[in-house]
Amino acid sequence: MDTQWVTDVLNHLSQFGRTPQNGSNRLAFTLEDMEAREYFKALMHDAGLSVKEDAFGNIIGRIEGADPAAAAVAVGSHLDTVPNGGHFDGMVGSVAGLAAIIRLKARGPLRAPLELIIFQMEESSRFSLATLGSKMMVGRVDLEKCRIAKDKNGVTMPEAMRQYGYDFEKLPSAARKKGELACFLEMHIEQSPTLEEKNLAVGIVTAIAAPIRLHIVVEGKASHSGGTAMNNRTDALVAASEMVLAVRTVANRFARKEIVATVGNLAVHPGAMNVVPGKAELWIDLRGTDKAVMDEAHAALVTAVNGISAMHGTPVSITVLVNDTPVAMTPEVISLLEECARDLALPVMRIVSGAGHDTMNIADITKTGMIFLRCKEGLSHNPEEYASPEDIMQGLDLLTEALYRLAK
Amino acid sequence: MDTQWVTDVLNHLSQFGRTPQNGSNRLAFTLEDMEAREYFKALMHDAGLSVKEDAFGNIIGRIEGADPAAAAVAVGSHLDTVPNGGHFDGMVGSVAGLAAIIRLKARGPLRAPLELIIFQMEESSRFSLATLGSKMMVGRVDLEKCRIAKDKNGVTMPEAMRQYGYDFEKLPSAARKKGELACFLEMHIEQSPTLEEKNLAVGIVTAIAAPIRLHIVVEGKASHSGGTAMNNRTDALVAASEMVLAVRTVANRFARKEIVATVGNLAVHPGAMNVVPGKAELWIDLRGTDKAVMDEAHAALVTAVNGISAMHGTPVSITVLVNDTPVAMTPEVISLLEECARDLALPVMRIVSGAGHDTMNIADITKTGMIFLRCKEGLSHNPEEYASPEDIMQGLDLLTEALYRLAK
Repeated sequence: MDTQWVTDVLNHLSQFGRTPQNGSNRLAFTLEDMEAREYFKALMHDAGLSVKEDAFGNIIGRIEGADPAAAAVAVGSHLDTVPNGGHFDGMVGSVAGLAAIIRLKARGPLRAPLELIIFQMEESSRFSLATLGSKMMVGRVDLEKCRIAKDKNGVTMPEAMRQYGYDFEKLPSAARKKGELACFLEMHIEQSPTLEEKNLAVGIVTAIAAPIRLHIVVEGKASHSGGTAMNNRTDALVAASEMVLAVRTVANRFARKEIVATVGNLAVHPGAMNVVPGKAELWIDLRGTDKAVMDEAHAALVTAVNGISAMHGTPVSITVLVNDTPVAMTPEVISLLEECARDLALPVMRIVSGAGHDTMNIADITKTGMIFLRCKEGLSHNPEEYASPEDIMQGLDLLTEALYRLAK
Repeated sequence: MDTQWVTDVLNHLSQFGRTPQNGSNRLAFTLEDMEAREYFKALMHDAGLSVKEDAFGNIIGRIEGADPAAAAVAVGSHLDTVPNGGHFDGMVGSVAGLAAIIRLKARGPLRAPLELIIFQMEESSRFSLATLGSKMMVGRVDLEKCRIAKDKNGVTMPEAMRQYGYDFEKLPSAARKKGELACFLEMHIEQSPTLEEKNLAVGIVTAIAAPIRLHIVVEGKASHSGGTAMNNRTDALVAASEMVLAVRTVANRFARKEIVATVGNLAVHPGAMNVVPGKAELWIDLRGTDKAVMDEAHAALVTAVNGISAMHGTPVSITVLVNDTPVAMTPEVISLLEECARDLALPVMRIVSGAGHDTMNIADITKTGMIFLRCKEGLSHNPEEYASPEDIMQGLDLLTEALYRLAK
């Protein structure tokens, strides 16, 4: 079987942008990202796929089917990572997608073409804009927002793209039409410990949660840390810390309704040991699978933040960076995946994705389904992220069978 | 009178390293710092002082007295600032020191020499090492620690010094002996609102509080912000936020015993919106005037931090960066300042300094006293920092009279 091949390719990918902590640093449009992509395109080429890229750098590999009029059955994921990220998020779906097509190619020609799509810039780490490759592909993207987006070093997205020969002005050409794809499947690690707790290797995703993202600026009064009495301070960090705890409290209140919320970053200004913080910034990520519940939790967060602000005399400004809508997978694809699993004698459960995936955007133009893999302790965006070869192969069997039935 | 001159010089100094927020950025050994120093050295020279620098860049201006054997009566402060700092902290004592010497020079020769000392690197902002110029001058400094100290851009102290022609290897030569100075006086803004609350322009400092500074690293578990259920997180920022609030609680508990404590900075790793924080760092500054109380508050802080760490399953490491001892001003100098104030019909009060000053180090080698000036709302390390020309001139009158009586 191809277990060794899959493991070898994953290991090889993990070396691009390797960090001292054994993670991978492959932010989109960096040298490390480009090197990993070149390696993977060569693999696709060697496997007999025709390989091209669209204007944003989404890689599209394809083998033709017997019916020239048939829409393509597609599979894919991404190769970019968060800073010091793990080796399975995105990679496992990319490699399994290629392995599945290699298997199907060996079985002989199918009716429909097969496509492997490697999306560019799935992670939001560089420009605070997530799943951008798939958004480009469905033509649902605010290009003017992208044009001015900057990374931590002040590099704009057009500059980052140009460095590797991509032309920002050509991005509209990346959009694909409804009807080009018959279906899109993505396999991904769960990034949560539900499957591990249920002792199952594989889950069938029913819906993808969406984020609401907020940027909060808290204004205090900078003053000398030694000279300012405790009862005479307006400490922006003290207020911000209460907000961090309030975010957790609100999320816990809505946890039964599939809400999670996180303060992923906090910055202190001026950030000197001898200055009472005059300003603090928080970035909040709230996710849910039910838009109405998300809106309710969002409102509760704003109320809590405003209450803390009033109590401390620290004015706040709250900016909504992202306000997305959860996406349901196509019921007939969910059923197909469940039938395949039953025929393969593979025990599965239905599951919700807390994280966003390119599949939620591709749902704009075609039917979609996702396969989740058990991962160690639910860890992700972390060098400790892990899915076992055995679990990956079970997911690959299911993926291959589903692609076969869709394309045959 | 010289009110206009003092105001003009303070205004001129405020332009070096001016920020868009109307503050000043003059970290030690930067171009802005050097330009302000050159301007001030020229003023000293024009006033008839002999001007030299020691190996660290402490500026020493001097006029000789009638008695060649007499130790010098010294006055001074500093010109460097925190990032986006104010225009009075350090500057007011530097300018008033020069103004006092100009006044005394006009009165005719005194028995003892007069010295104006402008200390280099009073602020800890660049290398996390405070009042370094005065430490160099009393020969109480860990040079190996200085050698490896780096600023935020990775520039070491020897490199920063070399850029402006200072030789790190010559630093031991900056040390001065007991007996060279008969006394040292420093005038400074209060950096706290006590004088303003008591409606007094001037205070006589009895003691300078000292800091204990801690660096705390909190280890959580980085995981996906969407995929990780609320009850399955080990969020380093949540634990760190509770620590910020605990620091305030402990400081409030000891506030009647002249303790303040501040978390001046907090950093989150990896600091991405879609990652539950895996690590957080806090920098704590605790100050007091009684070492025994400081030790008690320090112990209470460590207990609180360890308790939060245990509750959240987030291991912590606590490093003591600084553990200084408070310094009392010389009783006979305090009495002299009070006598001068009485003779000038200037109402004053005794007061404690929450912030550190170069005077606390110079106390190693000579008698010391400090004059505090009322400042608006107690603000400092902030562009809004302000002392009125009227208050400054009252402080200058007291400073001049005290220097006269010490040197006559």
